[in-house]
Amino acid sequence: MAAMNQQITLAARPVGYPKESDFRLVESPLPTPGPGEILVRALYLSVDPYMRGRMSSGKSYAPPVELGGVMVGGVVGQVAESRHPQFAGGEIVQGDFGWQQYAVSDGQGVRKVDPKLAPISTALGILGMPGLTAYFGLLEIGKPQPGETVVVSGAAGTVGALVGQIAKIMGCHVVGIAGTDEKVRYVVEDLGFDNAFNYHSTANYYRKLIELCPNGIDVYFDNVGGAVTDAVVRLINVRARLVICGQISQYNLERPEMGPRWLWALIVKQAKAEGFLVFQFADQFEQGLRQMAQWLQEGKLKYRENVVRGIEHAPRAFLGMLKGENIGKQLVKVADL
Amino acid sequence: MAAMNQQITLAARPVGYPKESDFRLVESPLPTPGPGEILVRALYLSVDPYMRGRMSSGKSYAPPVELGGVMVGGVVGQVAESRHPQFAGGEIVQGDFGWQQYAVSDGQGVRKVDPKLAPISTALGILGMPGLTAYFGLLEIGKPQPGETVVVSGAAGTVGALVGQIAKIMGCHVVGIAGTDEKVRYVVEDLGFDNAFNYHSTANYYRKLIELCPNGIDVYFDNVGGAVTDAVVRLINVRARLVICGQISQYNLERPEMGPRWLWALIVKQAKAEGFLVFQFADQFEQGLRQMAQWLQEGKLKYRENVVRGIEHAPRAFLGMLKGENIGKQLVKVADL
Repeated sequence: MAAMNQQITLAARPVGYPKESDFRLVESPLPTPGPGEILVRALYLSVDPYMRGRMSSGKSYAPPVELGGVMVGGVVGQVAESRHPQFAGGEIVQGDFGWQQYAVSDGQGVRKVDPKLAPISTALGILGMPGLTAYFGLLEIGKPQPGETVVVSGAAGTVGALVGQIAKIMGCHVVGIAGTDEKVRYVVEDLGFDNAFNYHSTANYYRKLIELCPNGIDVYFDNVGGAVTDAVVRLINVRARLVICGQISQYNLERPEMGPRWLWALIVKQAKAEGFLVFQFADQFEQGLRQMAQWLQEGKLKYRENVVRGIEHAPRAFLGMLKGENIGKQLVKVADL
Repeated sequence: MAAMNQQITLAARPVGYPKESDFRLVESPLPTPGPGEILVRALYLSVDPYMRGRMSSGKSYAPPVELGGVMVGGVVGQVAESRHPQFAGGEIVQGDFGWQQYAVSDGQGVRKVDPKLAPISTALGILGMPGLTAYFGLLEIGKPQPGETVVVSGAAGTVGALVGQIAKIMGCHVVGIAGTDEKVRYVVEDLGFDNAFNYHSTANYYRKLIELCPNGIDVYFDNVGGAVTDAVVRLINVRARLVICGQISQYNLERPEMGPRWLWALIVKQAKAEGFLVFQFADQFEQGLRQMAQWLQEGKLKYRENVVRGIEHAPRAFLGMLKGENIGKQLVKVADL
């Protein structure tokens, strides 16, 4: 085993779209766990849209990554050495260990992953933060009722794909919005959405939505923002719920984009737009994961993964994810079990 | 008694700001109540911002006034003749009788006004629709907690003035935004707001709000929209509630105004923006009116009225109200009791 720890650090704050040179691969000595700590060997690293926000210095819900600091990120790994009473060597764990091969942790926020329940990589996707985001955002804020119409932007993304499937389980009419024809086919043919369209090849989102949502829109799960959201707002029903989960169309802009003001529509429709962070449901995570695992075992939820091998490729995997290049949860395989 | 009924009808759909020529004063024969109906003689007519929406043909929460039709509006009047078992001649009632001297009604949506409780004109203001709008919008959607900061736009308007006073009763720090120095003085000196500013003479709303809201903003009650709202959004606290009641800055625009997109702020702050119409709280109106009447009697709520005499002046009163020319609830006195 090499005595060095490969890490990806933030080399520069991106201007607009991040690029590979904003990251740096460095090697540092292997860390040593102290009393009450564990050493974790990373197996899978997750790259997610929220990381774009952490690369900028602006105020947000969490502090930014420091220049020269290790990029933040969720990891599934194995306990390589434990000096913590609640963890044993060899156990599989999930935590925010960052973009590196090894990390030391005091166990705070680390959860054990049961390898018998599902492939361990799912702890970063369907049975992890993205899964919980879809589950609680849709059910606790969107509150979809049977027969209602649910529209999801970023429909083929990890969160969006699950939102649509959960909405189908709830008995809703589900329409997805995605960025390629392949993604549109994926959510309809593989995931069971009722319909979907490619916003890159659709000139008039509003007219397309009228066609696909003949009964209007009751719940909108927004991962994207921008003009897609503007079009949705024009078709919301009375007491509609707009669940604001992400705004990926806006993350790489240096200035706020301008758009038509539409708060009036919220009044006319007695509707709400509510933003959330998955952490606000932390005290219900266990219940959410249990339900998601059950649906997964029953074959009611499907997922795809797109795995890149080698931590040195994490920046490229992240940039590809931001651009929506691939279908499925983007993972970096850091090491074999 | 003249056998004719003076009415104000909609002569033209306004383009941008309405003007007096969009209205017409007409005379029609005095209507006669049939079985189960009452004839109401108008005493006070209310002019309110929502009427601007009804003058346009666009889809909204209620159908537009037809061209040539009598303008909609709330009225306090006296039962001149009753063929309805639940109403007696001479009783004071409040209903949506429109801009006219006499109206026939089947009693649907008509409520009796107790002249001993408060001056009957208050049934169109503090103890009527505007009062209920302030009460339920603030308490049911804004849910202000003691010590929180509440910001109100359109602070000197009928609704805004009550929102700020109710928020003070709830133990909040209350900051108003209004359009003249006189209005700013009114809400602070007469109504007891903690602070207020004149957005016409303030160059940077954001910096002014930082100064007046050192602990951020927990509840925003929006009557105005536009750039004022954009500045508020930059200062909201975690779990803030934006109560979207009106957007008077947008009503006279032929196209939606463009503004910076800010849904991202809702995510970061786990905050919501919720629009409402007072009618959605109809089953709680009685309780709301009881509470407002009690606060009024205890001297905890103050109000002002601005009364114009003669139904022929209703258009001018309406236009002045839209432009914020006067302080206080704008009423048209149609006849003496």
